[in-house]
Amino acid sequence: MKYRVVVTLKPGVLDPQGDAIRHALGALGFEGVNSVRQGKMIELDLAENDPEKAEAAAREMCEKLLANTVIERYHVEPI
Amino acid sequence: MKYRVVVTLKPGVLDPQGDAIRHALGALGFEGVNSVRQGKMIELDLAENDPEKAEAAAREMCEKLLANTVIERYHVEPI
Repeated sequence: MKYRVVVTLKPGVLDPQGDAIRHALGALGFEGVNSVRQGKMIELDLAENDPEKAEAAAREMCEKLLANTVIERYHVEPI
Repeated sequence: MKYRVVVTLKPGVLDPQGDAIRHALGALGFEGVNSVRQGKMIELDLAENDPEKAEAAAREMCEKLLANTVIERYHVEPI
């Protein structure tokens, strides 16, 4: 089973990397960029074939390693 | 218009960060992780209201700044 995990900062958490991208886009002449938020995308290829078990494993990986749940939230979707 | 841009390494390009995650998952006791690929996720909030123009602008931002198209590919989707 393959899963896509998207990890983003929780709303309200400052995102200096996103702001840096917004400024860089402005410097390149792109106007009308209200805001930019940056996150991580992780694709997991798991040997487990049971979708329920595989998704549970992916979520546990997020809780333990992939996301810092104090400031980040994650979303797991099959691909 | 809001867009989600996902930037991933092209197939065949080595992904040491993904490998590091795979090893870390193994060290935490997660078995059966065949492979891990890491990418970037960027959320753009654009002032442009015409979906066609906004998506074209988002793609241009990818070509010029967000993705290194020599080794990366990108995917733009409305959210």
